[in-house]
Amino acid sequence: MAESTNMRLRLPLLCIILEVILIILFGALVEYNDDTHAKMWNANKSHSATRDDYENEFYYRYPSFQDVHVMIFVGFGFLMTFLQRYGFSSVGFNFLIAAFSLQWATLMQGFVHGMHHGKIHVGVTSMINADFCTGSVLISFGAVLGKTSPVQLLVMAIFEVTLFAVNEFILLSMLGANDAGGSMTIHTFGAYFGLMVTRVLYRPNLDKSKHRNSSVYHSDLFAMIGTIYLWMFWPSFNSAITNYGDPQHRTALNTYYSLAACTLATFAFSALVNPEGKLDMVHIQNAALAGGVAVGTAGEMMLTPFGSMIVGFLAGTISVLGYKYLTPVLESKLKIQDTCGIHNLHGMPGVLGAVVGAVTSALASPGVYGHGLQRVFADAETGKWNPQSRGGFQAISLAVTLGMALFGGLVTGFILKLPIYGAPPDTHCFEDGLYWELTPASAKGSKVQEIH
Amino acid sequence: MAESTNMRLRLPLLCIILEVILIILFGALVEYNDDTHAKMWNANKSHSATRDDYENEFYYRYPSFQDVHVMIFVGFGFLMTFLQRYGFSSVGFNFLIAAFSLQWATLMQGFVHGMHHGKIHVGVTSMINADFCTGSVLISFGAVLGKTSPVQLLVMAIFEVTLFAVNEFILLSMLGANDAGGSMTIHTFGAYFGLMVTRVLYRPNLDKSKHRNSSVYHSDLFAMIGTIYLWMFWPSFNSAITNYGDPQHRTALNTYYSLAACTLATFAFSALVNPEGKLDMVHIQNAALAGGVAVGTAGEMMLTPFGSMIVGFLAGTISVLGYKYLTPVLESKLKIQDTCGIHNLHGMPGVLGAVVGAVTSALASPGVYGHGLQRVFADAETGKWNPQSRGGFQAISLAVTLGMALFGGLVTGFILKLPIYGAPPDTHCFEDGLYWELTPASAKGSKVQEIH
Amino acid sequence: MAESTNMRLRLPLLCIILEVILIILFGALVEYNDDTHAKMWNANKSHSATRDDYENEFYYRYPSFQDVHVMIFVGFGFLMTFLQRYGFSSVGFNFLIAAFSLQWATLMQGFVHGMHHGKIHVGVTSMINADFCTGSVLISFGAVLGKTSPVQLLVMAIFEVTLFAVNEFILLSMLGANDAGGSMTIHTFGAYFGLMVTRVLYRPNLDKSKHRNSSVYHSDLFAMIGTIYLWMFWPSFNSAITNYGDPQHRTALNTYYSLAACTLATFAFSALVNPEGKLDMVHIQNAALAGGVAVGTAGEMMLTPFGSMIVGFLAGTISVLGYKYLTPVLESKLKIQDTCGIHNLHGMPGVLGAVVGAVTSALASPGVYGHGLQRVFADAETGKWNPQSRGGFQAISLAVTLGMALFGGLVTGFILKLPIYGAPPDTHCFEDGLYWELTPASAKGSKVQEIH
Repeated sequence: MAESTNMRLRLPLLCIILEVILIILFGALVEYNDDTHAKMWNANKSHSATRDDYENEFYYRYPSFQDVHVMIFVGFGFLMTFLQRYGFSSVGFNFLIAAFSLQWATLMQGFVHGMHHGKIHVGVTSMINADFCTGSVLISFGAVLGKTSPVQLLVMAIFEVTLFAVNEFILLSMLGANDAGGSMTIHTFGAYFGLMVTRVLYRPNLDKSKHRNSSVYHSDLFAMIGTIYLWMFWPSFNSAITNYGDPQHRTALNTYYSLAACTLATFAFSALVNPEGKLDMVHIQNAALAGGVAVGTAGEMMLTPFGSMIVGFLAGTISVLGYKYLTPVLESKLKIQDTCGIHNLHGMPGVLGAVVGAVTSALASPGVYGHGLQRVFADAETGKWNPQSRGGFQAISLAVTLGMALFGGLVTGFILKLPIYGAPPDTHCFEDGLYWELTPASAKGSKVQEIH
Repeated sequence: MAESTNMRLRLPLLCIILEVILIILFGALVEYNDDTHAKMWNANKSHSATRDDYENEFYYRYPSFQDVHVMIFVGFGFLMTFLQRYGFSSVGFNFLIAAFSLQWATLMQGFVHGMHHGKIHVGVTSMINADFCTGSVLISFGAVLGKTSPVQLLVMAIFEVTLFAVNEFILLSMLGANDAGGSMTIHTFGAYFGLMVTRVLYRPNLDKSKHRNSSVYHSDLFAMIGTIYLWMFWPSFNSAITNYGDPQHRTALNTYYSLAACTLATFAFSALVNPEGKLDMVHIQNAALAGGVAVGTAGEMMLTPFGSMIVGFLAGTISVLGYKYLTPVLESKLKIQDTCGIHNLHGMPGVLGAVVGAVTSALASPGVYGHGLQRVFADAETGKWNPQSRGGFQAISLAVTLGMALFGGLVTGFILKLPIYGAPPDTHCFEDGLYWELTPASAKGSKVQEIH
Repeated sequence: MAESTNMRLRLPLLCIILEVILIILFGALVEYNDDTHAKMWNANKSHSATRDDYENEFYYRYPSFQDVHVMIFVGFGFLMTFLQRYGFSSVGFNFLIAAFSLQWATLMQGFVHGMHHGKIHVGVTSMINADFCTGSVLISFGAVLGKTSPVQLLVMAIFEVTLFAVNEFILLSMLGANDAGGSMTIHTFGAYFGLMVTRVLYRPNLDKSKHRNSSVYHSDLFAMIGTIYLWMFWPSFNSAITNYGDPQHRTALNTYYSLAACTLATFAFSALVNPEGKLDMVHIQNAALAGGVAVGTAGEMMLTPFGSMIVGFLAGTISVLGYKYLTPVLESKLKIQDTCGIHNLHGMPGVLGAVVGAVTSALASPGVYGHGLQRVFADAETGKWNPQSRGGFQAISLAVTLGMALFGGLVTGFILKLPIYGAPPDTHCFEDGLYWELTPASAKGSKVQEIH
């Protein structure tokens, strides 16, 4: 008999213990940074309103934060509602693990990126960074969607957030890599971590739930809400933590063009690979976003709109082809069951983005960037600027990320295999009824869908 | 025979009369403020573009305004679409009464908060305040959802907006209370006002519409759109009208952490109170938001992330427990039929927020806030700063709010009881078909749902 | 036999050719502007962080851009999902033609509005302008919705964007017109262009698809997502490219009040024109937005909240009456099959907005505007300020726009009539199955709807 999927004790216990630990650690370690602290911010002021208040980082980062926040909770959440009977879990578990991850990420990123006199300083920038790390977890969620209990997902988040912070530290602080939009740290890491987890959790008899592993008409429209929000706000995502001024402006612009070109490629190849020339919602929902992933590293550089559009077009193309030809092979040959096809949306485009970033770095020159060079490449300030070695470090960063992701996913996968988390049986994957109390009308809806 | 529900004359007449009155009063009383007036803003400038233009309050308030605006129209509107046959009314009547209330609130708040030479000055701050007042009406709408005609709702809004403005004036101007995010002025007021109205409108035979007073699968997903938007933008809501600089930044940060902790508590207790450990969509849709309500007063203070998370966790807990154990008792014993459970989302968390605000005020000190003290507590500027009395005034503010809300709701409830508004009969509550022209396909959908 | 609707070669070929042309032209002609270029922005700076970075136009335009972007992709996209079996196409083709149009518009607007040493300069302002132009194409899309293949829509976009740029140039640069929110350039142009196209494409036997040309319950709720987002962000739309400071602030405020008044008028007249006093979703979804259209020209002027509310109220009224009484006549007498009723939402309110703009211009005076006059009316700087002639030029601008739109729509309509684009047969209009691969469950849903 399958293990019980009853969450009555497991889920509350885990949530409460985690939150209590978080609260204790926040109490011991977390402080307002200078821009959010009443005393620090006003340390040298005696009057109540000053021009300086307009220069609080809040006003220059918070709109970007909110756009990123929408991507994390609405974008990822609704993107995964395409399954006919898994909408509650998609948007609900996305909500749960994101709410946990952003707290845990604040601590982990604070630990490794340097504490101030033993304290982690928080403000709008830490909020963005925590949301970024959360995004990585949600990417991995896409691979195991429908086949994992909420307890498994929280456990996965604990490990993934931790490793994310370590990998991010190695890349940004040790290797001095550029990766403002996270082609490597977020997308490549999240994708290969998730793919390895789902490989370890391989279910040979997943066919028993096959009839639920597809969409109905309105579930595809809900998913389009997620798609469109991700698409629209991706320029904010890639530019959210770049330097102020031209780098932030340029990143948003490059991402905008990359996505537009990607969308045309997606529609083109979606129709082309179908015998009747019909478009596939799966492609439109996912591949059209690959252009955002693929300029996540180079977006802040002088990639030019021209370069951005080429990258976006390529990303959309490989993503559609991946959905059509690679995903079935990954499942049949490599036993990788990738529910949302994250390999096509985040994996390959993430690697592409890393490569584009390395090449663009290697081609950077003071002639093109002028005084702006050090605004993009921090080590250009040292005077010992060498674009080729910069490009090399970018390439090494990709290799490190792949290694960390695959290793982390492997270990985490085996931890998640323990039969203590209430994972769904093969016959009840992709089914909300397992973890959600359905009203009679909702449950009927369920059966109607199955019968038809 | 039941009173006719035909809106053909009643609704147009009321809408047109109200709008004509609004237009006349706006023509007589409303003026652009200095930041929106072509002459005033440019009074001392002779050239066309100056640095000062970047310091127009528009750039520092408008992004917050838009987030609040989304909460009012999408957040509240879709949150209430969970009912299977009341989606049009939920989002449609929400739209109507919000569009009316924000105009009426501009006038009422302008009257009581002080006119300038007989004129009400408007700009982005008045827009935010009007939206806030509207939020209060929409909270009350949640209690009477499905049981009131649009004419009743407009009449309720007329009275509630007026009393809201008076109560807000007493709290902020007379008692000098802090309540930037409206734990008291918006949530406590709106909740207890609405609960009293629904008490007066008690329907002993509401059982006759019971089969429609629940969700279907996709209506719960629509409601999650509302939930997630409210959740994401609550940091903007609580910080929208704080002082510039660190207070605004800190409020957003505190709210972010409170909501994250609240979400984990909500999932934990939702599973715990269910015999099979299954999650309840009603809890996730509502209780996860209680953390935003509960830091509505203290959010701008030095509550710390640690404190915010504790408050959020408590708020989520009492909210879920309220839905599970208190709501049925309120209905059976106190005859309070609270369709959306606003007592659990806005009532109790609002009171909690007021108490937390009073305690945090009472603990404030120059040692912690430095020069920032007077940025949070306006009366600290006078030099006669006394945190204990400040805390006391906060507590008095809560009492005043409860009194005003219950009294106002009582009077308004009796006015709404008059049999002239086309209220739905007991057999046709929670039914769009009463007030909306349905296409044949939509109407069929209706019957299908009922038969199943 | 009807022409084949197979898109397998046509759509990919067109998309790829267009994108390749775009990429080549961008490579040859497009450059970062001074605010996005690493070298230009930092030309006179030697240090890494300066106060100037806070004054990059990004921080003052980008939040408006994102709001406009949401309107284009979510607003227009979901507004058109009201049809029961055309949701994929509505949001999907909207996505496709918008992604194409914004790239093409960048080039066309760049060409006609003046190049810099043979280069088109891009930044956040060009992004907003490109989105604006795209909006115009999406308005026209509303008229032909359900009756055109994606290939036809792309071809329409090629011509419409080009003519839009020419018309915009004539109005703004040659006639010196004010039209920040695009009552003329966007709404009037897009509406009459689209109406002429649909007139030329008249289908006498469209009745054969009549049963699909209506909504189901949940499709109307999806459409409300579009409506509400358009409504909320319209203040950002109208103010996105005004001058900084008071004009931008005032435009947002005026639009806010116009829309609120419009909403009450819409509910009033929707109930009034129905024999049973029932509200019609078509009116609420569309007419409530007419207030935003109608202050698109005068919004930046000293229209006052009072004036804005009157305009909004009128716009809502004529829009509802148009849906009820004019649309059927347009179809039966003039053979204009206007799927979304764009004549009522964009056509008549656009013309109203142009007239209001002309009158408000003619009434402008230094007494009211002070030094702010030249911030609104660029030619007031010359000293030869003459409000009457300004009003006259505004009126001429409307006439030019109508002429350009009708002529352009006529030509484009005939081009779209060629039997090479895979247009749907009369029996399969408003049907996603023609262009989209449907899952079995989705396809079943389709039949169920048709049978009922």
